[in-house]
Amino acid sequence: MENFSSVQDKAKLVRKWCLVSTTEAGSGHPTSCLSAADMATILFDRYFTYDIENPLNIYNDRFVLSKGHAAPLLYTLFGMAGAYPLEEVKTLRKFGSVFEGHPVPNYKYTEAATGSLGQGLSIGAGLALASKREGLGNKVYVFTGDGELAEGQIWEAANFAAHEKLDNLVAILDINRLGQSQETMFGHNINEYINKFKAFDFEVIAIDGHNYEEINMAFQTVQNSNGKPYAIIAKTFKGHGISFLENKDGWHGKALKKEELEKALKELEPIKDELRFNLKRPKQTELPHQPDKIRSSAMSFEEKKEYATREVFGEVLAKLGNENKEIYALDGDVMNSTFTEDFKKAHAERFVECYIAEQNMVSVAAGLSRMGKIPFVATFAAFLTRAADQVRMARVSEANIKFIGSHVGVSIGEDGPSQMGLEDIALFGTLPGTIILQPCDAVSTEKLVPLITAQKGFAYMRTLRPKTPLVYSNEDSFSIGGSKILRQSDDDLLTIAATGITVFEALKAADELQKEHINVRVVDCYSIQPVDANTLKKCLNETHHKMLITVEDHFVHGGFGDFAAAALSGVSGQVIKLAVKKISSSGTKEELMKDAGIDASAITAKVKSVLKKEVVM
Amino acid sequence: MENFSSVQDKAKLVRKWCLVSTTEAGSGHPTSCLSAADMATILFDRYFTYDIENPLNIYNDRFVLSKGHAAPLLYTLFGMAGAYPLEEVKTLRKFGSVFEGHPVPNYKYTEAATGSLGQGLSIGAGLALASKREGLGNKVYVFTGDGELAEGQIWEAANFAAHEKLDNLVAILDINRLGQSQETMFGHNINEYINKFKAFDFEVIAIDGHNYEEINMAFQTVQNSNGKPYAIIAKTFKGHGISFLENKDGWHGKALKKEELEKALKELEPIKDELRFNLKRPKQTELPHQPDKIRSSAMSFEEKKEYATREVFGEVLAKLGNENKEIYALDGDVMNSTFTEDFKKAHAERFVECYIAEQNMVSVAAGLSRMGKIPFVATFAAFLTRAADQVRMARVSEANIKFIGSHVGVSIGEDGPSQMGLEDIALFGTLPGTIILQPCDAVSTEKLVPLITAQKGFAYMRTLRPKTPLVYSNEDSFSIGGSKILRQSDDDLLTIAATGITVFEALKAADELQKEHINVRVVDCYSIQPVDANTLKKCLNETHHKMLITVEDHFVHGGFGDFAAAALSGVSGQVIKLAVKKISSSGTKEELMKDAGIDASAITAKVKSVLKKEVVM
Repeated sequence: MENFSSVQDKAKLVRKWCLVSTTEAGSGHPTSCLSAADMATILFDRYFTYDIENPLNIYNDRFVLSKGHAAPLLYTLFGMAGAYPLEEVKTLRKFGSVFEGHPVPNYKYTEAATGSLGQGLSIGAGLALASKREGLGNKVYVFTGDGELAEGQIWEAANFAAHEKLDNLVAILDINRLGQSQETMFGHNINEYINKFKAFDFEVIAIDGHNYEEINMAFQTVQNSNGKPYAIIAKTFKGHGISFLENKDGWHGKALKKEELEKALKELEPIKDELRFNLKRPKQTELPHQPDKIRSSAMSFEEKKEYATREVFGEVLAKLGNENKEIYALDGDVMNSTFTEDFKKAHAERFVECYIAEQNMVSVAAGLSRMGKIPFVATFAAFLTRAADQVRMARVSEANIKFIGSHVGVSIGEDGPSQMGLEDIALFGTLPGTIILQPCDAVSTEKLVPLITAQKGFAYMRTLRPKTPLVYSNEDSFSIGGSKILRQSDDDLLTIAATGITVFEALKAADELQKEHINVRVVDCYSIQPVDANTLKKCLNETHHKMLITVEDHFVHGGFGDFAAAALSGVSGQVIKLAVKKISSSGTKEELMKDAGIDASAITAKVKSVLKKEVVM
Repeated sequence: MENFSSVQDKAKLVRKWCLVSTTEAGSGHPTSCLSAADMATILFDRYFTYDIENPLNIYNDRFVLSKGHAAPLLYTLFGMAGAYPLEEVKTLRKFGSVFEGHPVPNYKYTEAATGSLGQGLSIGAGLALASKREGLGNKVYVFTGDGELAEGQIWEAANFAAHEKLDNLVAILDINRLGQSQETMFGHNINEYINKFKAFDFEVIAIDGHNYEEINMAFQTVQNSNGKPYAIIAKTFKGHGISFLENKDGWHGKALKKEELEKALKELEPIKDELRFNLKRPKQTELPHQPDKIRSSAMSFEEKKEYATREVFGEVLAKLGNENKEIYALDGDVMNSTFTEDFKKAHAERFVECYIAEQNMVSVAAGLSRMGKIPFVATFAAFLTRAADQVRMARVSEANIKFIGSHVGVSIGEDGPSQMGLEDIALFGTLPGTIILQPCDAVSTEKLVPLITAQKGFAYMRTLRPKTPLVYSNEDSFSIGGSKILRQSDDDLLTIAATGITVFEALKAADELQKEHINVRVVDCYSIQPVDANTLKKCLNETHHKMLITVEDHFVHGGFGDFAAAALSGVSGQVIKLAVKKISSSGTKEELMKDAGIDASAITAKVKSVLKKEVVM
């Protein structure tokens, strides 16, 4: 029988720092750290292969703490691996410290921000997928809690991992029985988890998560790859190692008071403070590629033809993928609608079919981004909403993801409201610094996709279902934060700012109005965020009535109109929003745009009514 | 051996109308109807018990079409059950028709809007739960596709149904192999589904979904209840019954052309157009209760004490539950944070622990709402985002749900950005007609909860983590769409509109400014949507600089500020938004509010800077 006394001593030190740091902070989740401490310690002591100077080395093993509230465990592990002096962990949860309450990318050893539960397995699957497809040979270890296994995303990730044969992915399930408010749904009924992960085609290893022999055996086993992802299902006890915490209700998310801490540390004695992990280094060092320079797809379009921007997007992405090998495309069983199928045809090795599981898709993309990839995530705009929380967390992770939402607005027609993307600008718009674009024609689409590819960070592009005529010529240029004035004269009465499909309605309205000698300016705000504040201000100032009418195929709150209004705050004038204000229905594109009050006739009517009002006033 | 020829004839008629209606529409998903047609026909012919005059009769069996794109099947079934002339189904997908592309509540026989996949089992679980808890004895049949089984929500629902022992719930899985863009992950590997549903503790019946003997047996079996939910796992063929459609790629979401339709109908001959279903009627008739009148919880608060609005909410809800028996409370393992635990203590029979599975929680609430319940769905505001798509679809369903999001904003402090609700106003605000409230103290909370309880529809209330002092006295009154002016004078220079925690910052700022003889008006906009436009306009007009500064603990786009700005569109003046503009971190409430630029000092500084600018100008 092997002697585990040295690693057990290290586990004591791990426990000490989880307790000390949370007591210093006055809050946190020490007992959630303690249940996983033994497994994590053996992993770091014997198996984890990592280049501590280069957390981004693509050959590193990966440690994903899905149960993000156990952050002090993560901080202690890497501290004991020499990443920083352990004393620093005492700044836990303090303003300005990298040791936040839940891991964030300021702390460079975390693979992703966690803390919204049930996302870690998908992130791990993204990391493992990149490794697998590129033959890097490293392993990804994901520690999950048991409460979070109730999140459906776990099973999306499980399906995905098994389907992609990610045998370099190891889920370590810390089944400590207790959730926040009470016992979890299955408590210590470990068979519930065993049966489920087996049914989801994982290789399952069930262990006592505090038995060093069994833990070690499990980690030894997972070093072999047999085509299946692994689940180490560990029966553990919350607060294990400290008698008055272990398996006790009422200790979730509570730090020990000073005197309780002293009592706890006594139980751990003797503590060997000098113990450290000596991580194995991977044989190679390679950092992820930097974002690419801007490349053009060098396409051109025929003046008289109509194109759907979603189709153009697909073609452009496939072409960009020829030179830029970091681009990945992910889709949720709608590649023939979003046109990522073009990318798949050209670059099957970098196409990821995620099936109808949008949450997993977004978190997989976050994992790919961490490996230096440039993932394009595409589905109907309406169904990106399904992954709103994963989008939010990927933003906190500072992931470099490009989202493509097709089938936006009521203009999709007959399918009805469930398929209409009408909240997507709000979804992405609230997240700080997210680029939001909506080109209205083929040319602007072709020019804009390369720009978001080259710029690191979050970007979202709306693409249109119907075909639209060309507004631009192949020589026109576009920029993030730009816009185009499409109609103007020396005596414009007001300005209409449109985006996407409503550009054509605005142009129609302008033409109609001109017949009645009413001149209006029309701006195509293809960049919604950042919006072209300078141009909008200029338009406001140069028009008689200092009035801007925004028109968009999106719900009225949180859309383009609010970005335009915010850009004009501080300028005297008036912003009137035309947008969708009720739940739409089935019908033709024309009927539904009219019904929503965002078509040419609605714009014309609004212009006339506001002008009348102005004159009367 | 039984003779199924009559029911087979009915199935032919069902097929005919699915094909005819989609061809008339020129779009739709006929082949997805055909795979489920045999099972649905037997169900309606022999088992489905339903009061066709009263779709809301609480004793009705329920038919939930989770695969909403098979809407023509639903429309044909109820048409053949006598709900309306079948000919009407020819208006499918036409503007103004109740027969939309995917089911919506305008069509009164649908239990919920579907079309965003993977939600039907949760909705069915909500219906089944109400029935089970109240002993109504009816059954809930949920038809799902196979593509949608990739959605994690399915497994959240499965866990929930098994845990709640919903043996009145029958999932019928139409495993027709083909998704939209290609074969599903598991194709016709039926064992994958059998193993999974067994592992999730369902009673599984695997059948050939086109074999009438087997289908009938399955429905006979599920009439008995044995403590477990049922899954009828049916191997089917997309397009079954028409040779050139059956099991063929490239037919998803495509209507037949006129000549193809003729060919198809020939294959179905002879078609007996006169056949109809004669549904069994339930023995009793009872419609859901109407929304309750406004009741007070009759609590009062001590002037010098501080209260957390989340705690007050919990107490009020528990008290309202004494008289109002329709109130249900649902929580996601945070009842000790949201304080729905008070409701659980008082009314365990109407408390629903959903564990950490927010998507299922929201759709279960939609099901409860359909049964006339008033579900309160509570979790951290940040985690309501996890269910953004379910919230969206519940709104399309016109469900009567009250959402409570606790732990809003950076003011939660040390836990960090993953736990901060900073997009929630945008999430609910985009959805037309959603009431959004944010009381800042105990009194206003106590007065507002009864108002949303009594008003049918969507409402969202933000509750605060920290305790706050009383701003109001127990006699003050509040209204949806109201606000309170907390500071004013005859020479106010501008107005500060705050909501929730920032009310206290605005008051502090006003006091500071007054010391320097700068008078500002302060308004508590506890009603964010509808916002009190009249009061804000009045404030703008009555202050020297016609300027409104909004302050909120929410991201800057899509928040309260945008509602305020929209309310003032058409009034000359200026709106300046103070809100969170970057990802926050861990820290104390005070540090983080200062860092975000939404504390008293930020307000004071902003007021001074805009006044200086105005004077210079």
